[in-house]
Amino acid sequence: MSRRPIGIFDSGVGGLTVFREIRRRFPHEDIVYFGDTARVPYGPKSRGTVIDYSVQNARFLRQQGAKIIVVACNTAASVALPTLERSFDVPVIGVIEPGALAAEKLTRRHRIGVIGTEGTIRSGAYQKAIQRLYPAAEVIAQPCPLFVPLAEEGWEEHPVARQIAAEYLAPLLEADIDTLVLGCTHYPILKQTLRQVVGDHIALVDSAEAVSTWLVDMLPHSESEGVGRDEFFVSDNEEKFRRLASRILDSEVDRLQQVSLGETWYVEHPITPEERA
Amino acid sequence: MSRRPIGIFDSGVGGLTVFREIRRRFPHEDIVYFGDTARVPYGPKSRGTVIDYSVQNARFLRQQGAKIIVVACNTAASVALPTLERSFDVPVIGVIEPGALAAEKLTRRHRIGVIGTEGTIRSGAYQKAIQRLYPAAEVIAQPCPLFVPLAEEGWEEHPVARQIAAEYLAPLLEADIDTLVLGCTHYPILKQTLRQVVGDHIALVDSAEAVSTWLVDMLPHSESEGVGRDEFFVSDNEEKFRRLASRILDSEVDRLQQVSLGETWYVEHPITPEERA
Repeated sequence: MSRRPIGIFDSGVGGLTVFREIRRRFPHEDIVYFGDTARVPYGPKSRGTVIDYSVQNARFLRQQGAKIIVVACNTAASVALPTLERSFDVPVIGVIEPGALAAEKLTRRHRIGVIGTEGTIRSGAYQKAIQRLYPAAEVIAQPCPLFVPLAEEGWEEHPVARQIAAEYLAPLLEADIDTLVLGCTHYPILKQTLRQVVGDHIALVDSAEAVSTWLVDMLPHSESEGVGRDEFFVSDNEEKFRRLASRILDSEVDRLQQVSLGETWYVEHPITPEERA
Repeated sequence: MSRRPIGIFDSGVGGLTVFREIRRRFPHEDIVYFGDTARVPYGPKSRGTVIDYSVQNARFLRQQGAKIIVVACNTAASVALPTLERSFDVPVIGVIEPGALAAEKLTRRHRIGVIGTEGTIRSGAYQKAIQRLYPAAEVIAQPCPLFVPLAEEGWEEHPVARQIAAEYLAPLLEADIDTLVLGCTHYPILKQTLRQVVGDHIALVDSAEAVSTWLVDMLPHSESEGVGRDEFFVSDNEEKFRRLASRILDSEVDRLQQVSLGETWYVEHPITPEERA
């Protein structure tokens, strides 16, 4: 049987934190990564749009032969996972369940903070996943919409990043959480800043690490020979991706290609010239 | 002849600052506004993608009967205007030329600062437009990629907005500019913060005002009777648009509809299964 790659998609560069962990754990596997850099960020978009985009992205990974699809974007995972599972004939895994499980393993007092994009927090996906594991858990959720733009601009260690983080995290610290889930794959990029803000006594759950641990169970017969090949696809701005990726991965991205969209707007209820007159 | 609307498009809510000025100057005209909220922001996207999106948006406005197309997004205007002018049979006006002209009218020492998105500044469109009017003008350009997310999040008067603005504008103040072009239609939303940072001695050019002045010359026979109707279309997140719009326009948005996309990814140089094996 020919080698088939692990497929990973994200709205942009954030999923590279997931890629990095999976590459580390599966050195012999081929990996195909798709970053939807033309349409980043997903966080502020509506549920329906994120589902549409996720299905398009997963379809693209299937076209590239992916044997499993990793949704390395919490916003997409939090709303699109059931649709993706129904729509594809290969396993689909998201970052929510693994993150929730890791949080429940780490917490002592079951007071768990979750930070994520507007879309992720609004979906309640983490809250539900954690409470499925431990119904009495107290989950305090906080959207942090400016973290993705900060990470995408490379301002993750800038003093304003720290100030913004302090403001977003204040209610969680006040609520006396003992564990904080970084519910967006961009957030590990800000890990150092977040650590400074929350101090040393709160456990940080990096969903990138959590999902790669999960994947070990999903791929019991993973490739054990040869050097795994990486292929990267983006929907826009190859050069910017290359630059950010080399920072996140600490190495140069080799095989990178830009893909294009064919698209037309349509209106569901067009206004007729008569109505307008 | 039946009434035909003025068409305006932007990547999101920023163009509403242009809409507001045009509505004020043309109370009898119908206006159709399209905000591409599914794909906002345009600033970090590549030239080719912004041109593609702009053509789709303008085509949509033409389908709605627009007699003139106002590109109320500096990023789109800075790269797509020639393509739009060639592609459509109605006049197309951008925000760059009017902004450059307004700056040259206001400046005394011909030391002009321009702030905008990455895409706008990289294109050099303002620099060229100003130097066409006055070749010896000194233009100091500065990309401000975090301003759009700040405005879209409603953080325009937050202390961190001021801090970020102070950092972005420092080189312009050091260069002793006397005029500052707000080269992004989102930036008038941050006007108060920007004014605090630059002080009272620097003239601010609001491209929204500039383009509506320009339009007066382009539409000499504008409608003079009846109450102009507004129609708004967005590609995503109707409710968020409604909320931000009511803040920017100081009134509720009435006729608002969401439009959808039909789309498929394709790769220009697909990798064959043989190559992968």
